[in-house]
Formats: sequence, C-alpha cells, structure tokens
Amino acid sequence: MANAINVGLIGAGTVGGGVVDILTTNADVIARRLGCPLRLARVADRNAARLKELDLPDGVAVTDALAVVNDPDVQIVVELIGGSTVAREVTLAAFKAGKHVVTANKALVAAHGEELFAAAKAAGVGYAFEAAVGGGIPILRSVREGFTGDRIKEVLGIINGTANYILTEMTEYGSDFADVLAEAQKLGYAEADPRFDVEGIDTAHKLAILVAMAFGGQVNVDDLYVEGITHITPTDLEYAEVFGCKVKLLAIAKEQDGRIEARVHPTMVPESRLIAQVDGVFNAIAVTGDKVGPTLFYGRGAGALATGSAVVGDLVATARAIRSGGAGAMPPMAFQQEGRRPLVIMPMDEVVSLYYLHFTVVDRPGVLSDLAGVFGRHGISIAKVIQDGQAHGQSVSLVIMTHRAREASVQAAVREIEALAAVTAPTTLIRVEADDE
Amino acid sequence: MANAINVGLIGAGTVGGGVVDILTTNADVIARRLGCPLRLARVADRNAARLKELDLPDGVAVTDALAVVNDPDVQIVVELIGGSTVAREVTLAAFKAGKHVVTANKALVAAHGEELFAAAKAAGVGYAFEAAVGGGIPILRSVREGFTGDRIKEVLGIINGTANYILTEMTEYGSDFADVLAEAQKLGYAEADPRFDVEGIDTAHKLAILVAMAFGGQVNVDDLYVEGITHITPTDLEYAEVFGCKVKLLAIAKEQDGRIEARVHPTMVPESRLIAQVDGVFNAIAVTGDKVGPTLFYGRGAGALATGSAVVGDLVATARAIRSGGAGAMPPMAFQQEGRRPLVIMPMDEVVSLYYLHFTVVDRPGVLSDLAGVFGRHGISIAKVIQDGQAHGQSVSLVIMTHRAREASVQAAVREIEALAAVTAPTTLIRVEADDE
Repeated sequence: MANAINVGLIGAGTVGGGVVDILTTNADVIARRLGCPLRLARVADRNAARLKELDLPDGVAVTDALAVVNDPDVQIVVELIGGSTVAREVTLAAFKAGKHVVTANKALVAAHGEELFAAAKAAGVGYAFEAAVGGGIPILRSVREGFTGDRIKEVLGIINGTANYILTEMTEYGSDFADVLAEAQKLGYAEADPRFDVEGIDTAHKLAILVAMAFGGQVNVDDLYVEGITHITPTDLEYAEVFGCKVKLLAIAKEQDGRIEARVHPTMVPESRLIAQVDGVFNAIAVTGDKVGPTLFYGRGAGALATGSAVVGDLVATARAIRSGGAGAMPPMAFQQEGRRPLVIMPMDEVVSLYYLHFTVVDRPGVLSDLAGVFGRHGISIAKVIQDGQAHGQSVSLVIMTHRAREASVQAAVREIEALAAVTAPTTLIRVEADDE
Repeated sequence: MANAINVGLIGAGTVGGGVVDILTTNADVIARRLGCPLRLARVADRNAARLKELDLPDGVAVTDALAVVNDPDVQIVVELIGGSTVAREVTLAAFKAGKHVVTANKALVAAHGEELFAAAKAAGVGYAFEAAVGGGIPILRSVREGFTGDRIKEVLGIINGTANYILTEMTEYGSDFADVLAEAQKLGYAEADPRFDVEGIDTAHKLAILVAMAFGGQVNVDDLYVEGITHITPTDLEYAEVFGCKVKLLAIAKEQDGRIEARVHPTMVPESRLIAQVDGVFNAIAVTGDKVGPTLFYGRGAGALATGSAVVGDLVATARAIRSGGAGAMPPMAFQQEGRRPLVIMPMDEVVSLYYLHFTVVDRPGVLSDLAGVFGRHGISIAKVIQDGQAHGQSVSLVIMTHRAREASVQAAVREIEALAAVTAPTTLIRVEADDE
C-alpha cells in the first residue's frame, strides 16, 4: 500500500473527538477506499486535558495550532476551532503553507467565505466544509458534484436540530417553548446560550452557504431575513394541525426571475410533504432542480460522529485528489470562481407567500367584518377563517389563512388591525409553504 | 474560457434525449461549474429517425456507435444502449480507445461490472454510473464519496418506480394488481413486458450495485433473493394498514457478522418510517453507517430528465477530473480494486425477520390451535393474530404477525400448515422490516 497521507487536526472538542474516533476505529475501511492510510499526524488544542482524554499516540498532541499548520508532514489541516477570528487566521495560514483545509465551521464560511475561497485558489489548495451544513448528510457534495447539470430552483431545509427538536416536542406534548428549551438544555440538545439556534442565526449561516452554492454566487448573510421560533406557542401548533400542517424552522431559498428569495423563519408545511415528517434532532434538505425535479436528503444534523463522518468524507475526498494529482481543483462553492456572480436577494417585503395569522380579538359583532375590510383594502384574499369559542365581550382567537399575498401588504394589514380597539394581544404570523388552493 | 471537453453519446432513446436536452438548455450553467464548455460532439443511434428528432447541429449525428468510440475528439463516451451485449462491447472498445465512460446501464454493471472495472483501471480511465441506481438521486456519489469514513451497516431502498407506483395505487384505491398494472401501462409508467419491474429483477440489479459499493466487494446478482409484487392483494394492503404499515418493494442489504443479507421482496414497513411515506414513481434509499447513523435520499427514480441529470452529473465530474489531471482515479465501486473482497451473501434460509402471514382457513373450532401448534414446534413466536369474520364451515382469513423468526423455520411452518385440511387457499407471506416489540 502507498504511503500514508498525513492529517493535522486543530480543535479537539466534540467534533474533533468524533474525527479522531472515526480515523482510529475505521482506519482499515478508509484505507481500502483511499488506497493508502489516512494518518492522524498532529492534534492541537489549547486545552491539554482535552488532548489527554483522546489517548493519542506519543508525539501527536500539541497545544499550538501553528505547530500543526507548519508541520511539513501535514498535508491536510482539519480546522475545528469554531468562530471566525482565530479560525480564519489559522485557515489562511494553512493555505499559505500549501495545506488543504477541511472544516465544519459554518460561521467562518458564511462570514469570510469569499476571502477564503480566493486564498485557497491562489494557493492551489482545496477547501471543503461538508460538515458545516446538515451534519452527516452529504448535501453540499450532492449540490456541488451531483446536480451540476441542473439549474437549482429551490432549497428548503430543516438545518438546525435544536430548533427542530424543540418544535417537535412542543407539537407532541403541547408544551411551551420555554419549558421544552429548558428540557433540551438539560439533555444537551441545546446550548446554555441558545440564541444561535432558536433565533435562526445558525440556520441563516447554513442557508447562506446553500444559497451561494446552489445559485452560483456571493451572498451576504446579513441580507437574509431571519426570524426564530421563540414566539411560537402550542396553540399555533394546534391550529397548524387543524390545517393539516406541521410548523418547522425552515431555511428557504428560491430563484425567482433572476433574483433569490432567501429567508429563515418558522413555516407551516403540509403534513403530506416528506420534510414535514422530519422530527426531533434530524435534519433534511429538499433541493429542486429544473431537470432532476424534487429531491430530499435526510440524516443527523449534529453530533460528534455524524458531523465527524462528514469531516472524514471531505478528508478522504481531499486525500484521493492528492493521490490522483487533482487536489485543489474542485471549486469549493460548486461554480468556478470566475463563473460566480453577485446574487440579488429579493427584499423580504416583496416575497409572496401564504400566511397564517392568529389574532386575539374581543368577541363582539363587527370585528370579523372590520378585519376583513382591512385585508380587502390591502388586496389580501382570505382562504379560511377559524373563530374559536364564544365569549361575548371576552378575548377569543381569530385565525385566518390567506391566499398568496405580498409580505409588505400582510405586514401593513397586521399593523392596521393591531391598532383596532378590538385587538387585545399581539398577532402571530406564520408563513405557509404550500400550494395555494 | 478553456477549450471544450467533447462528449460522444451512444443511444438516443428516452434518457439520451434527456441528456441532449440538459447539455443544450443548461450549457451556460454547466460551463460556469466546469470552467469550460461540455460539448456534445457526436450522437449515435442505429435509428436515423430518432436522431433527426433531436435536431442536432450538422455533423453530430451518426448511426455507427464505433464512429463515436473511435472519434479522436471524443473524450467521454455516454453509453445509453442498454442491455449487456452490444453495450458491453462498446464500453470495452471505449476503454481501449482511452475514453472515459458514463452510463445508466444497471443490467450491464450488475452482470459485467468486475470485467469493466478491471478494463477501465487497466486503461486508466473512469467508469461512472450514477444514473443506474435511483435515477436523479445522487445516491452512488454519496456512498462512494460521502460515507467514506463509515462502515455501512444497512441499505434499504425503494428503487423501482413502477413497482412503487403500482403498490401506491393499490393501497390508495384498493385495486387489484392486474388492474393497476394495466393502467400503469396505459400511462407509460410500466413497460409492455412488465416482468423486469414487477418481479423485482430491475431492483435486484440495482441492489447488486449498492451492495458491492456499500460493503466493498464483489457480488453475484444471482445470489440475491428476489421476489416480486405480483402476488400482493388489496386485502394484504388493508391488513398492513391495520398493523400501521405500508407495503413496499424493498431492496434490503445488511451486514451481519461479516456476511451480507441481500434480498428483494415486498416488505411491510411501519408508517412512522420516512421510507414508508415514499409514494408513486418516487424512489428513496436509506443508508445507515456506523458513524453517520441513519440517512435517507429521495427523488425521481426514472424519466428522461431526472436520469439525464444523473448522467450529466457524472459527465461534469469526469470532465472536472480531466481538467484537473486526476481523471480515471476514482474507484468506480468506492473501494480501490485491490481493497475489494468477495462478499459472502447469507443464504435466505438463515435470514431472521418478522413475518406477516395471511392464511385462508375453514372457520371451525381447533384450527387456530392447530396452526399455533405448528408455529410452536418450529420455534416461531406469535406477536399478533387477527381472525376476521365468522362463517362457520366457510373460509375466513387468519392473519398472524410473528416475532423475529428464521426464514427456514417460517417456510417449513407454512408448508406444514398448508398441508392441513382446514387450509383452503395459498398463504401470503410478507416480511416485515420493523423493530420487534
């Protein structure tokens, strides 16, 4: 068998531990696929205790990241530092040293991708980040290397397992957001600071990567509309069921006449769609191409071994390319750098969707008529109304499902309705990803 | 932009037409991904009328396959001849002429794969066949290049759209197999000679490819157990519903202590599993790796454009490899040729499963006890019994769901029971892919 290809890993946290596990326990099967061993030559972490736990062979563990980057034996660097400061510097240093880099760092790719792609290209090395989106699901590889004959029309994704776990539990047990979040934190499914997950920020980072790769251009993550799940109530989930829907935190991207819709928000999805059936910490991404039609990819979106599996997949692909002499040639974002174009993101106001609107109003004659009047003036057509309970003079729920309407019109109508004296609580607005009937 | 890479296509049938469509209408987006145009230099078909319909530029259409293979300009040959005689010769000739080959031909890969892989390796060229399994779903790429850090434990697939369409319609409308088949033939979803699809042969070809790729070795398609859907009745589908299941024609492969279970048969699957929700002509493949855990891939399993999309995906991958200097290096079956091992397929008799058994018996005292006695003697434990209808002295249905049992024991028990005087019609046996409760 040919000489080993040497890997240097930086960041021995959860995913790092998963990568070490896989490279160790599956070394035989990896070598049979690659044609040579994939050798873990260096592992760096600032935390020596963490390194000790990994039980590495003598001389592998180091505390200095640059000792990995500058080790002449190391051919591929795995960056699992996280964040976008030190990680960026280490990645640029690795490129400069002629190393290929594999990462799981979505924040870094979403924030500094363009700089890093250019630096990798200039150095003639590869940059791969399958683990950054959808954990163990080979979604980026499928878009970058599978759907290369297609114009991608749409991407819909459940790409944050924490948010999906919380919504699934809320749906199943009718529990409040706060209670489920606390439970998820206890179980280790949510971080102590959960904002990144439940406010949609992590989902937006991943969507930015998917959009850039699917539609062939640069995207600024700040241009994406992002709304989290913190305002979703068990009552809304029950109404969703009445409409035959589930509520999911979806990343949505669509090509519309040369512009790209790209948004993250809680979304009602008909239960008849496969993606609505994806529960718990699992992820799924539905990609529609103009030729291939609808597709869906499902799997674990997080965890040491699932994410580690994606990292090792990129390591083997990079190592195969080194062996064949073609390393560094795969465009990290599917399109050649010179073939990428600035993408125009459609302002949220111009997005057209169906809407679920849950008003809380005083139950008295004329209220529905007042609301209907506002909708009419804003050109919004109502598909269904549910008025629950009878409690003259008390607050009741008035739930409206609209036909296709423009975001700006719906927001204006909601503002106008909320100014009515009959409205006694804030409105819940959930966009609906379904065919208009 | 760099010079074009030239493609020669042989076989201008349905999929060939799809490939021509994609290379023509999506030429711009393909070039942006590849960095150079992908040019259709030659298209061969023995049928000149077919060629005419494609409206190709002057000089592209030829009637002789060897004119494509031997054209010095052609760098990649697309073999869409089908079958395993002429297609095999043309493929070997293409390898000999130093051309990379892309195909959708599952029968050829399943029957002559080993010979072709060796020939491609000897010639230093690539052989790719994503379109052979799961139509437009990038399942082979995902197994070959995504899950390279995993030991694959299990593959479950709905990989024949015709059979899935028939079972879906039978389930939805309670129709008989023969009626739905006739309807499917009218709609073009089933061939005039449907045996290839409904008897599981096409599924077995695809399973053989999946098994070889997932488990890293050679497999003889004749060693797979294959049973079609022709004996499934609407009554069995109704009972499936009672058990919370759907019936699907599944390709099943599992690694069990170094041996491989590999079988194709109608299978009851709990509705709670995502794969049970895959209806109509769609395909889905669930792959479980020891590290990545459960995954699922879904999409169109057939059709000119979906299958064409997979062919073009392979074309772009091959063209990228030509441009980077690494062409011919990707092992077609995921494992390096020297890393592949003969796989030991477990004899069907030794397979352990849950079983649904539908007996037709005379309704008289003692019959259930007789049956239960037979099961007991064969060491088969019964999980549930449904006895439907009361018609003393008449035939009624007696439906039994077993706990985990050995195939040989169940077959022996069924033979013994069918010899009883009380049994008035043949038994339906459907294996169940579920957890034993």
